[in-house]
Amino acid sequence: MKQNVQIIQNIMNANDTVAAKTNQRLSENGIFAINIMASPGAGKTSFILKTIESLPESIHLGVIEGDTAPVTIDSDKVKDLGIPVVQINTGGACHLDAPMLDNALPHLPLDELNLILVENVGNLVCPAAFKLGTHASVLIASIPEGDDKPYKYPNIYRGIDVLIINKIDLRPYLDFRMDYFRQGVEMLNPGLVTFEVSCKTGEGIDAWLNWLASKVS
Amino acid sequence: MKQNVQIIQNIMNANDTVAAKTNQRLSENGIFAINIMASPGAGKTSFILKTIESLPESIHLGVIEGDTAPVTIDSDKVKDLGIPVVQINTGGACHLDAPMLDNALPHLPLDELNLILVENVGNLVCPAAFKLGTHASVLIASIPEGDDKPYKYPNIYRGIDVLIINKIDLRPYLDFRMDYFRQGVEMLNPGLVTFEVSCKTGEGIDAWLNWLASKVS
Repeated sequence: MKQNVQIIQNIMNANDTVAAKTNQRLSENGIFAINIMASPGAGKTSFILKTIESLPESIHLGVIEGDTAPVTIDSDKVKDLGIPVVQINTGGACHLDAPMLDNALPHLPLDELNLILVENVGNLVCPAAFKLGTHASVLIASIPEGDDKPYKYPNIYRGIDVLIINKIDLRPYLDFRMDYFRQGVEMLNPGLVTFEVSCKTGEGIDAWLNWLASKVS
Repeated sequence: MKQNVQIIQNIMNANDTVAAKTNQRLSENGIFAINIMASPGAGKTSFILKTIESLPESIHLGVIEGDTAPVTIDSDKVKDLGIPVVQINTGGACHLDAPMLDNALPHLPLDELNLILVENVGNLVCPAAFKLGTHASVLIASIPEGDDKPYKYPNIYRGIDVLIINKIDLRPYLDFRMDYFRQGVEMLNPGLVTFEVSCKTGEGIDAWLNWLASKVS
């Protein structure tokens, strides 16, 4: 058992070393990178597509799509909008890690970009444990998932810089106590930057884009 | 690397050995056990509560609740309905495994039960890889997650015995192509037993209970 713990420790250290190098390389190239995490179906891809749709002219975006299976459903949608995209197939693994991102980056035209959005695997547990070398982490929660998620998946809420509460257009049809939800978030991550949005109606996306523009030089 | 693969292989073998023993022990006690898996917020707990509400008299149920954090939100709801329940806190891990279930079982009044529902951690990736020793696996998909999930998380769809499509009351408000979804499922798991339900309105729950009653002696 002690041997297993040591091996896991070595894996995490190796990951963090690669993440630090990636972070430095991106910064030196004037690129701000964001790790986007969420449950399956919370709307990661829709959120990226909505961001692309209203992207300020000053932002030059590339996208990296993480999937557990070799399907190009998400990356095709991004490509169709004329945005450079690379897909990472994790081969069944439940999260991206720093070496995967490191290997994917050279396939984007880095000289032309100042923002990279990385769509992690849909999962509220594993992605929280692995640094990628990005500059900020965004979690997308969604109203139909229920208001108890911060209480049940605290680790991922602790480590994020921005929270997106998606699918607010569905509030009339669901029993979602926003106060209870946000109280749980506040307990774990006080003062967290939070945007309530609907990727379907476009509500709230402007505020997110303003935040994004303030981060990208 | 070869050493890591060997260790992972050993862990999986050890897990399967415990799972086989658990399965035998449950069968000898006349207990049918079900592993319930889903994304976070697909409605695992609501589904268990709805099942309890209309439980046929012939079924004597116990519940095991898997959570990544030491919160008793779900297990309290089950306990409030007078059903024996044990909570497993995975300590941050992304799935249950056979030893966790093995340790939890003695805390249920096994002599009095003929059905155990095990609520796995909310996750579409990791739980698919670990046998628990249950007799059947049920996956709960939910309409708001979108219709592309079988294509993006194929492994979990391959290994299940029953699929529950939950939150069908939300169909009028969402673009969910049922044909496309079920076509993806059929490709991975031909002829899979499937129930469309709403835990909110109760629609479709009777058909699920009939299936359940047919499995419990």
